[in-house]
Amino acid sequence: MNRQWLYAKQPVGKIGPDTFQWTETAIPVPRDGEVLVRTRMLSLDPANRAWMMGKTYRDALEPGQVMSGFTIGEVVESKASGLAKGDIVEGDWGWQDYAAQPARRLTKRATDAPMELLIGPLSVTGLTAYFGLLEVGQPKPGDTVLVSAAAGAVGSMVGQIAKIAAIAEAAPGGIDVYFDNTGGPVLDVALFLMNLRGRVVCCGNVSQYDVEKPAPGPMTVPGLVVVKRLRLEGFIVTDFYDRRAEAEARLARWIADGRIKAELDIFDGLERAPEALIGLFEGNNRGKRAVRVS
Amino acid sequence: MNRQWLYAKQPVGKIGPDTFQWTETAIPVPRDGEVLVRTRMLSLDPANRAWMMGKTYRDALEPGQVMSGFTIGEVVESKASGLAKGDIVEGDWGWQDYAAQPARRLTKRATDAPMELLIGPLSVTGLTAYFGLLEVGQPKPGDTVLVSAAAGAVGSMVGQIAKIAAIAEAAPGGIDVYFDNTGGPVLDVALFLMNLRGRVVCCGNVSQYDVEKPAPGPMTVPGLVVVKRLRLEGFIVTDFYDRRAEAEARLARWIADGRIKAELDIFDGLERAPEALIGLFEGNNRGKRAVRVS
Repeated sequence: MNRQWLYAKQPVGKIGPDTFQWTETAIPVPRDGEVLVRTRMLSLDPANRAWMMGKTYRDALEPGQVMSGFTIGEVVESKASGLAKGDIVEGDWGWQDYAAQPARRLTKRATDAPMELLIGPLSVTGLTAYFGLLEVGQPKPGDTVLVSAAAGAVGSMVGQIAKIAAIAEAAPGGIDVYFDNTGGPVLDVALFLMNLRGRVVCCGNVSQYDVEKPAPGPMTVPGLVVVKRLRLEGFIVTDFYDRRAEAEARLARWIADGRIKAELDIFDGLERAPEALIGLFEGNNRGKRAVRVS
Repeated sequence: MNRQWLYAKQPVGKIGPDTFQWTETAIPVPRDGEVLVRTRMLSLDPANRAWMMGKTYRDALEPGQVMSGFTIGEVVESKASGLAKGDIVEGDWGWQDYAAQPARRLTKRATDAPMELLIGPLSVTGLTAYFGLLEVGQPKPGDTVLVSAAAGAVGSMVGQIAKIAAIAEAAPGGIDVYFDNTGGPVLDVALFLMNLRGRVVCCGNVSQYDVEKPAPGPMTVPGLVVVKRLRLEGFIVTDFYDRRAEAEARLARWIADGRIKAELDIFDGLERAPEALIGLFEGNNRGKRAVRVS
């Protein structure tokens, strides 16, 4: 059987157990050009909640669909050239044990890489931290970097990368780069502390995803943006995927050197996925939260 | 006598006649390195109001000071090398008939240039439109540009420059560059209409300068900034003054070709300066508002 969590209904305010519905169905059969994957790891990300609110950089989740999420799995049957039984792949097939997926929607990963790296620092999480800080934030030597939700998955990576870039952590002289994962009141305060020509990397808005009524926007936009010549810039990690190989190579070297640690917060068992996601919005994760499915 | 308008007291909410106080004092005597200038034109700008609210990119206005403002005048006596009687200069000596100014605080202008150009398209107004649109906004062929307060001084210049750049005005396909002079509700709406990777040029926040209680910030910051990969960037025209000569040459050519028109809204007489500034926040100007002092 294929165990699945469906997205049951749009939440009003916070997500809860009734946002999801457990179901069991037949294991799908791959068609030509497809493979059957067995889920190994399921990534839980604040963005999962944002997808429930409407169209973002991807279509909105619709009730009745398998709940979406970034996944790592193993090919158990292949009808696609270039992928073979035993290959490890990443994709976006969501909260289920098995999925039939076209090969073009999957990215092959090293078979011997630890799951903790594939779901953490070498995944969307690590790449988001890498490109957001270095490309969008453009930190310079001596810059002070502030990261909101720094205990979260992306935030903890940004902090580690910022240290490698020899950037001071404390901000007595104001902030030059603010990596904003949260929006809301932290963004408000950060804008007051920004230095002239500071850069705000708009990565996420987690404070506003799991609420019934969003907070007002930051009072100091656009006033302080003009006066301090700030730049606020949004990005999605996939914008930079043409340079993914370069980023992965550097991240892998930093991991090997011990300068980046994979901080993981793993729940065992697909049945615990809703609990793991709900907890993310209560702030009870430390580092990258994922579910080990098999 | 030297007639002056002093900045009398910080307004609560809207500025009014009691924000200013008329006074008459002796004509100052220039010291070595200074010139005595007689004011010809006085520029009225929304920023004048922002300076009353606290420190911005310049020190806050303090009650009792001569009211600040961008000025064009004629040298009537010189004790500075490089400036002679009859020279036309621009500066920032405010709402008065005469001022003694150090030569380094003045910029010499062409003696035969029409006052309408020196106070309008070839002044801070024109340069703000030029650098803000072309450098910060980075419009590309085919881009749609939205300008708020497009009947105002900077706004009407931006519109004309955008047309020269062969950019369509109507926005059925969304907005690529939004030149924001206003903040407030127009910024809110514009953010909803922005296209992917759109640029918001944060030039001013005029909707919020003359109010007692500022409006909440834009609800869609940072949500839509992330999803649409927007860039919001503030600037002050003086950031670009190392390239002022280049900009003036291009603006002068466009004026000579008739592609840019100096839209001026002139009040005659220094005594009318408060009325002219108060009206700016009632939106009753069309183009660049200035006072002809002598």
